[in-house]
Order: sequence, then C-alpha cells, then structure tokens
Amino acid sequence: MAAPSEGDAASLLPDLPGGPLQAYRARASFCWKELALFLEGEDTLRLKKSIFSALEDDPLFARSCGHELSLEKHRELTFLRCKRVLGHALVRVEDMVQNPLSVLTLVTCLGTYDWSLAQKFLLHLLVFGFAIYKSGSERHLEYLPKILNMEIFGCFAVTEVSHGSNAKAIRTTAHYDPATEEFILHSPDFEAAKFWVGNMGKTATHAVVFAQLYTPGGHCHGLHSFLVQIRNPKTLLPMPGVMVGDIGKKLGLNGVDNGFAMFHKVRIPRQALLNQTGDVTPEGTYVTPFKDAKRRFGVSLNNLSIGRATIVAMSVMNLKLAVSIALRFSATRRQFGPTDEEEVPVLEYQTQQWRLLPYLAAAYAVDHFSKWLFLNLAEFQQGLIGTDRGTRQAELGREIHALVSGGKPLASWTAQRGIQECREACGGHGYLAVNRLGDLRNENDPNCTYEGDNNVLLQQTSGYLLGLLELRLQGGARLESPLGTVDFLEAYPDILDQRFSCPSVTGCLQSSVPLAAYEWLVCYLLRESVQKVNQEKRSGSSDFEARNNSQVYRCRSLALAFLELTVVRRFHEYVHQPSVPPPLRAVLQRLSALYALWSLNQHTALLYRAERRRRCPGGRDRSSR
Amino acid sequence: MAAPSEGDAASLLPDLPGGPLQAYRARASFCWKELALFLEGEDTLRLKKSIFSALEDDPLFARSCGHELSLEKHRELTFLRCKRVLGHALVRVEDMVQNPLSVLTLVTCLGTYDWSLAQKFLLHLLVFGFAIYKSGSERHLEYLPKILNMEIFGCFAVTEVSHGSNAKAIRTTAHYDPATEEFILHSPDFEAAKFWVGNMGKTATHAVVFAQLYTPGGHCHGLHSFLVQIRNPKTLLPMPGVMVGDIGKKLGLNGVDNGFAMFHKVRIPRQALLNQTGDVTPEGTYVTPFKDAKRRFGVSLNNLSIGRATIVAMSVMNLKLAVSIALRFSATRRQFGPTDEEEVPVLEYQTQQWRLLPYLAAAYAVDHFSKWLFLNLAEFQQGLIGTDRGTRQAELGREIHALVSGGKPLASWTAQRGIQECREACGGHGYLAVNRLGDLRNENDPNCTYEGDNNVLLQQTSGYLLGLLELRLQGGARLESPLGTVDFLEAYPDILDQRFSCPSVTGCLQSSVPLAAYEWLVCYLLRESVQKVNQEKRSGSSDFEARNNSQVYRCRSLALAFLELTVVRRFHEYVHQPSVPPPLRAVLQRLSALYALWSLNQHTALLYRAERRRRCPGGRDRSSR
Repeated sequence: MAAPSEGDAASLLPDLPGGPLQAYRARASFCWKELALFLEGEDTLRLKKSIFSALEDDPLFARSCGHELSLEKHRELTFLRCKRVLGHALVRVEDMVQNPLSVLTLVTCLGTYDWSLAQKFLLHLLVFGFAIYKSGSERHLEYLPKILNMEIFGCFAVTEVSHGSNAKAIRTTAHYDPATEEFILHSPDFEAAKFWVGNMGKTATHAVVFAQLYTPGGHCHGLHSFLVQIRNPKTLLPMPGVMVGDIGKKLGLNGVDNGFAMFHKVRIPRQALLNQTGDVTPEGTYVTPFKDAKRRFGVSLNNLSIGRATIVAMSVMNLKLAVSIALRFSATRRQFGPTDEEEVPVLEYQTQQWRLLPYLAAAYAVDHFSKWLFLNLAEFQQGLIGTDRGTRQAELGREIHALVSGGKPLASWTAQRGIQECREACGGHGYLAVNRLGDLRNENDPNCTYEGDNNVLLQQTSGYLLGLLELRLQGGARLESPLGTVDFLEAYPDILDQRFSCPSVTGCLQSSVPLAAYEWLVCYLLRESVQKVNQEKRSGSSDFEARNNSQVYRCRSLALAFLELTVVRRFHEYVHQPSVPPPLRAVLQRLSALYALWSLNQHTALLYRAERRRRCPGGRDRSSR
Repeated sequence: MAAPSEGDAASLLPDLPGGPLQAYRARASFCWKELALFLEGEDTLRLKKSIFSALEDDPLFARSCGHELSLEKHRELTFLRCKRVLGHALVRVEDMVQNPLSVLTLVTCLGTYDWSLAQKFLLHLLVFGFAIYKSGSERHLEYLPKILNMEIFGCFAVTEVSHGSNAKAIRTTAHYDPATEEFILHSPDFEAAKFWVGNMGKTATHAVVFAQLYTPGGHCHGLHSFLVQIRNPKTLLPMPGVMVGDIGKKLGLNGVDNGFAMFHKVRIPRQALLNQTGDVTPEGTYVTPFKDAKRRFGVSLNNLSIGRATIVAMSVMNLKLAVSIALRFSATRRQFGPTDEEEVPVLEYQTQQWRLLPYLAAAYAVDHFSKWLFLNLAEFQQGLIGTDRGTRQAELGREIHALVSGGKPLASWTAQRGIQECREACGGHGYLAVNRLGDLRNENDPNCTYEGDNNVLLQQTSGYLLGLLELRLQGGARLESPLGTVDFLEAYPDILDQRFSCPSVTGCLQSSVPLAAYEWLVCYLLRESVQKVNQEKRSGSSDFEARNNSQVYRCRSLALAFLELTVVRRFHEYVHQPSVPPPLRAVLQRLSALYALWSLNQHTALLYRAERRRRCPGGRDRSSR
C-alpha cells in the first residue's frame, strides 16, 4: 500500500496538535498516518471518524466535568445515550453482516468514550438481539425491529446467584403445561435467582432467560432459552410474578444496571421458547434436530463465543488507552537528571521503558489476533446460521471455541496487568481519577471473570489440545485444524528434539526465534500435561479429579502458552507479509519481536528446566525429585 | 506460652459465629485463639478490642448502607470521625512512645474500618504532628496540644505538581527578610504548586511546607520545612496570599481531601522554620549543626521512613482483609463437581489453592517483618530524638533506610497482586462493590507510588548493598550491620560456590531450603549488579547513566530479592524459636515454607541460568551471547 494521498490523510487523519510531545514524535522512523492506514484500512478509519464525530456533535455525550455523577444519573444517562446511538444508526445491520469488524469498531469506539455505554448497547443489541435472531426461529423475527428501535429493551439471563461458570447446573425451571400451552417459569429459591444480568436492574423490558426445560411427566431436557417479558415497557413496573431489581454498585461499569430476577410461577406462551436447539409441540412432546444432548447444550451456549471474542477486543482497547496515557505522560514528565539543573523525561529511564514498551507491543500483537479471531468467528457463525453442518464446520467450531476460551484470558490479563503497570508508571498523577487509569482498571477487570472465569476457560483450551493429541495417538488422522493453529503439532516428536540455537543476541531480536521456542514449549507442556493426567488416573483419580489436579504448571500453562504462540505467530506472519509498506517494516517487526520475546520470557525457567532434564535423560533433575 | 485461659479467650476472643464456614474451621489442626494470642499478644488484642468497640458503639461510625456516599459527604464524615477518634483517646501519646506498635495497631484498625479515616488521622497526628515534634524545637512545642485536640488541623506538604520522587528539586522558595524577621514563602509558577497534599484540600488549617531556604545575598541552603498557617481555623477561608484547594476525585481514599496550594509572597515569622537541621538568626545568618549539606537533607527527610514503614503495615492489613474475604468465599462457594448432583467448594480446586494460599502465607510473613521493622525504626527514631549520634546509630539509620525503601515496594506489590488475585478468585461476586475487594485494591494502590515510587525506592536498597560491598572490597571492615540483615554477605564468595542440594521433595518443604537459595541468589545478583555498573562505567557512562542502565534484571532484582530474603529469614527464625507453642509449630512452619518457596519460585529462571553458566565457566551460556 502506498503512503496515503494528501487528501485522504487530511480528512481522515488530521495532524496532531503541537505540544510537549512534538519532540518525541519528530523522532519517529515512520509516518504514523501510513501506519494507521495500513493497520486499520480506510473504511475502518472512516467509520471511526463518523462514530466519534456523531458523539462529539451531540450534547447528550458531553462530559460532566467537575461534578460527580451519581450512580442513578450515570445509569439514566447511559440508557439515553444507548437509545441515541441506535438512533444515529452508526452501523447498519446489513453492514454488520457484510463487515463483521464494523461491530467491533463500533463497540470499542463507544468503549473509548464510556464502557458502560458500550456494554449497554452490546448487551441489548448484540447479546440479547442476536440470541433471539440466532436461537429463535421465524416466530421470533417480529421482535427484531422492536429491538432496533428500542421499543423493547433486552438482557440475557444465564447466571444465577449460585451458578456462573457451571452454567449447566443452573436451576431456574420451565415446566410445560399442555392445558394452556404455556411454560411455567420458576425460581426454586434465592440461590437460583438470576443475578448479575446486565441491563436487568432498571431498564430491560425483556430477557432471554435460560432455564431447565421440563415436559409433562417430569422429563428434563436440559437448558433452553426463553424470551420473557419482565417489565411493562411503558411504566417499567415488573410483570406479575417477576421480582426484579438492581444488584447495586460494582467496581466499575456503573452506568450499566446489573440486576437480579426471581420468577414465581410465571406463565409464558409456548412460542416464547427460542427453539433452535429443541421445541415442544402443543401437546407437550419434546422435539430436537440434535440427537446428542451434549451437542445441543454446546450449540445453545454458542453465543458465548461472540461474547468472549468481543471481550478480547475490549481488553485490547483498554490496553491501547492505558499505554497511550502512560507513554504520553512519560514523555513529558521529567524527574531527576545527570545534574541538579537538568532533568530527563522519565521515558528515558531503562525501568520505565522496560515497564511500558512491552505493553505497547502487546497492544499491537493482541489487536491483530483479536481481529483475525473475530473474522473467523463471524464466518463460522454465518455457517451456523446457514445450514453448514459439515465436518469442517464442526472442527472450525471446536478450534474457535479453544481460541476464544484461551484468548479471553490472555487478552484480559495482559490488559489488566498493563493498566496496573501504566497506572503505577504515572506515579501520583496516575492515581487522580481524571487521568482515567482507574476507570480503565475497574472496567477492564470484569473481562477477567465474566463470560467464564479465566482459569476455568483455559481448561477448554487445554482440553481441546489434549483431545487432539489423544485422537492422533490412537492412530487417527493428521493433527490439523481449519485455521491451522495446531498443525505444527503434527511434528510434535521432532519439535521436542529440537535445540535452541542462535548465534548472537542480534539474531534473537526477531520474532521467528521466540516463535520456534514457543512451538517447542507448547509441545513440551502438552507432553507434561498428558503425562500428569495419566499419572493421576493411574493413581486412582477420577477423570474429574485428574483434570483438576493437572491444571497448575501443566494444563493451565499449556493453554496460555498455546494462545501466546498463536498471537505471536499471527502477528509475526502479518508483519512479514510482502504487502507491508517498506517504511513500516522495521517498526512493525520490532514490535513483533518485542512482544514475542517478552512473552516468552515468562517461561524461561521452564526452558532451562527442560534442557536440564534432557541432559540427564535417565532420570529427573535433582531439584524436582 | 500456654494456651489462653478460658477467661482471657472468652473476653478477648469470643467464639466465631456458626455458619457455612464451620465445617472447614472444625478441620483446623490448631486452636485459632492460641495462634492469635501468640502472634499478637494479649495487650494488642486488648487494644484492638477497645478500638473496635469504640467504633461499634458510636453512631458516627455506622455504615451508610444502601445509599451512595458523595465525595463531599465522605470527606465531611471522615473529618468528623477523625476528630472523634482523637476525642476517644484510644491510644495515649505516652503509650505510643512506650509501645510503638500501638500506633500501628491503631492506624491499621482504623484502616480496617475505612482507610480514608486512617489516612486522615495518620496525616494529621503522626505525619504533621510528628514532623513538628521532631523537626522543630522548643519554640514549636506550644502547637502540640492544639494538634491533639484538633484546634488546628495539619498536613505535610512536600510534593509539587512537577516534583515528587525527586524531592530535592522542589521549587517553592522561602526568602528571609531581616527587616521584618520574616520568611517570604513563594511558589514561582504552577508547576511548583504543592500538590497531592493529604488533608490540604478542604480541612487543614496548618501545613508543614518544604521550601528552598534563601538567606540575604541569595544564598540557597536547600530544603527546609516551615510551619505555615494556610486557613483561618474558624472560617476555613484561606490566609492572604495562599491559594489552596482540592485536587478532586482519586481512584480511592476519597474521604481524604488531597489538595494543592500556591503561595504568593506569603510572609511567615522567622520562628516558623522547623529548625532541627538548620536555623536563621534574626540578622539572617544561616546556622546548622550539620557540616554536610547532604547529611542535613537526609535528616530533614527522615520522617519519610516512618511513612514508608507504616505503608508496609497498611499493605499487610489490606492483604489480610482480601485473603480473608476470598478464602471464606472459596470455602462456601460450590461450583462443578465429580457428578452433576454434587458440587464441591471451589477451595478444593488445585487452581484456587495455588492462587490464594501463598498470599495467606505472605500475609503472615510480611506482617511479622512489618512489626519487626517498625520496632527497630522506633528505636532508631528515639535515638535520633535523644542525642545518639554514634556510629552504630548512623549505620542503623542506613540499614533501616534500605529496609523500608525495599520493604515498602515488596509489601505494597504483594498486597496489590494478592488483592487482584482475590478479587478474580471470587468471580462475579468479587466485582460487587459491597464485597470490598474493589475498595481494597483502590486504597492499597497508592501504597505502590506514594512516599516514593516503588521502582525508585528500590534503588536506595540496591545502592546500600552495592555501597557496602564496595567498602568491603576496598579492604574495609567486616560486612555487617546493626540488625544483621547483611551479615551473610561476609561469606559472599563461599556462598556463591555453594550448590543447591536437597535429597527429596519433602526435604524442600521447609523454609531453610529456600532461605539458603535466597542467600545464594542475593550474592549472585549483587555480583551481577556490580559487574553491570562497572561495565557501564567502563563504556563511558556517567554514574547517573550507569546506575539507571543497571536497574532491570540487576539492581532492581537485587533489591527485591534482598528484601524477600529478609522477610523469609525473619519469619523462619520467628516460627522456629523455642517459645512457639508446640501445637502451633506445624502450621506456622508450613506457612513459612510456603511463603519462602512461592517467593523464590519467581527466580527459578535465574537459578537455572546461573547454574548453566557455572558449567561453562570459560564463557557465557549460548542463549545470552
């Protein structure tokens, strides 16, 4: 791609204002406009500009400077802003389908302004709305225009007081009554109350409620989702039998009204069942296109993949914001110096660079991974919505599930640690609320636990890898996957035999070196994990215990290392492709090397340890005996 | 010590209430009351009880449940509560001197209730009040009763907008005018405004202000402190020439009114100078008992040591609170299980134990270090207040300075990471404000940056160690220090020759093993740091550059490892002393081993790497070439 023409650049990327950062900016080895155009593309830049302009031009989005925003006021404003965003129609539904990244762009731009707004919008339109679109059938299509114009406002209710991660065990029930052709929705006790549901606290009129479906005779068909009206859209008073309210202040995202709900024998029509994975006939017979109940459960929770992939993108945006704030501060803040008279910008200090620059590199690398993942997920979802039920589609589903389940932990933790580092790197000024690092920390934080706790999610990723290897060892087909992220494992024994060699430090300063080390590391951790699980089983542990007792240092590390490898590989390939404009190659390749080496650096103890074991192949090294 | 008699236990340590935690509590191998008595002692338990009872019985300290506390209201309440705490006279000044730990107990108990209150109280009484007591002279004693009854309310103003860590470079000036026998206090520009000063925003009537002292003829004598009235105590209106206000919302501690102040040629009497380190005669001649300006600066900032040692204790308290919340939650929260019907407490999962239990151990180990450090610091301060200016006193001062400068980073980071881990380990419920983990994170956070940024402070510690070694290598005296924390370095070459050996895993499960490894590690890092600094100097770096360029992986790691070693050693010795009641030995020694091994585990890459280098003594290992 050529450098942007002057016209493009001027309209999409106006020059930065002058000021104390100019000295550093003048030293850049590349044109930042060219980089922005290459990374984002003109369409995305144009979309961003239109979103930000819409917010800037609308007084409803004016910041409330100087006075505190109460919880209630923040919630009210966020609701009004959400409605206004829908009114602006910043991205048309057709565009979302044609260019799935436009959804991410919209959500993260709104988040740049205020994550509460982004969340509220996302929960209503993309979680609630998409759930109806995807899990329902023709009979539910009438709701879509009402969702788009916010005639009804929605939320997505899975979690209960006592069950989050173990969604399968949720205890709300829906008993079918053929006499009236209704389901009776019921919360058996307080612990089964829906809890944490975003938008439910004050504003939602409708909820997609997950409940255990029972047909007459007491047969339970497992978790299904139902479209339930919970409030009167005119008065916002709860519907009969629904006890609904706000769960109170959270560490952040207080513009979103998270809520609870208990259902006391609430009757809803048979058609309220979102019947993609199973339906009940008027007479009360359960029918499903899925033979396998486990598979049905998987599909009904498939929505969560989009949620998790979106969290990856939101985390990256938080990291970008924090790193920008901290680097700009560091470039202008001066403290100490070679003489009493001359102080140097803190960015010049080794410690400051060491703390911050790897997170800058991480922002670029994980950002690229995020977009790649989301595009593949969108493709997969479109296959699901169509009738593509082929083997490749199933394999792609499993691979993407493994990638989002590990990608969310990697991205959210990287952002969380990065934000904390940025906050501290700004000293006292980082502790002042107006500088936003506190909000970023508080609003990125739930990314680590919602849509699945990070440590629990990582088990999905390691389970996928262990399962693939088991199939291969049982004489199965080649180890490969639709997106190719596991293909290197086919050479598993050879990779484990490789030795690290690099002639010089300079030779290591490129991402191909840590990339090779990562392949070895993942193979090594895979073998260690398999051995540990087997050893547990041999000593009498059940499958459940064996898996749980093999997490620390084994399966958990494996899942994270596999994701790091995938991020490193994707960014490495991206910055080394021929289409990278020559003036940008050096800086992008340095970012790629920095991220990969920094990330690998967490595992050096393991690299040394494994090498030591190799030297004494007969036994284990002394320190681990 | 024998198990507490029934009477003691009943009055000081009532039985815990029944509930879902009982099952776990019943499984304890020891009596918790005996442990509490051994760790705290009866006097401290009694003091704690009296403090908590005073707060419980006073409606002013009632929690405002259910409604939001505005910033203004929180500040107002905190001021009133601070006054009430002084009124209750929970600890008499005489007791503080006799038993310095009573101060820490009071401050951390107040913090357990609300850190804003603890801070406000601490800043007024112990920072402002003690500064006047310690840095002033007889002419300032009249202020002390007014401080104790809050007739005046104080703050301590060092930091300016542009200078925090580099306190020496602050730019407020105090020019002496012999004509009126006054100092003229002046802020040359906005960047020299006092900033961040706790209590200054709304409530302080007086400030200890640090400024560069000038005598006629324009001679600057460096930083001195002045007692300055900034507001009218009746109206709280600013004094003429003082522009003072609130800096706004912070990430936490919002009950404390941090403020800014600019002085426009404000005239204060000559006697306002806190003249411990230097005075000005009525005619304008500067007189000082210190020949060395550097030494004078050191003494005038010595107050900071108390601040830093207090931060260690506050951090430990935060960690204790967070770990208690997370462990109790983990013991009662059930999720997943071997069958669909049976779910197990999440505390039973390997991952959860691995995340939380090391922080439990850290709370005990760092707590012991904190008390030990504070007692020694108190002894040192009493020496300072007396006239003990001997060599041991100077050496003790340097050792304590190194310990608080490294102890603050270690304690505050351990707490910060521990709180984050606890917050995540509680899943969604950890994100609910009412569960307090967010407040703990936000209120522990400044501990990482104030009273000196952690990374900057660590340089004091490494500088101390490098300095000692340099003296020794120049043929100086034995390597030893009053508290003995560096004495092992005398065997530096022998320790570096030692090899790790442990016959079995069980053999490693005691703190003596990691303790020995830590001694080796500190020696190794000390050698590496010295080599790196020297190499930098040989290649032409100035002292300033050489030091800055030797921080990452060298001096910074050295300082942290030295502090970890000190904490590990202190706790190891404490739990292995004969006075430990036999029923408590097993559990305390396991805590000691867990903390030491977990802490050492951060450094395994270095241990492997160093061993590898040793195998190829002729050269460096390939990976670092």
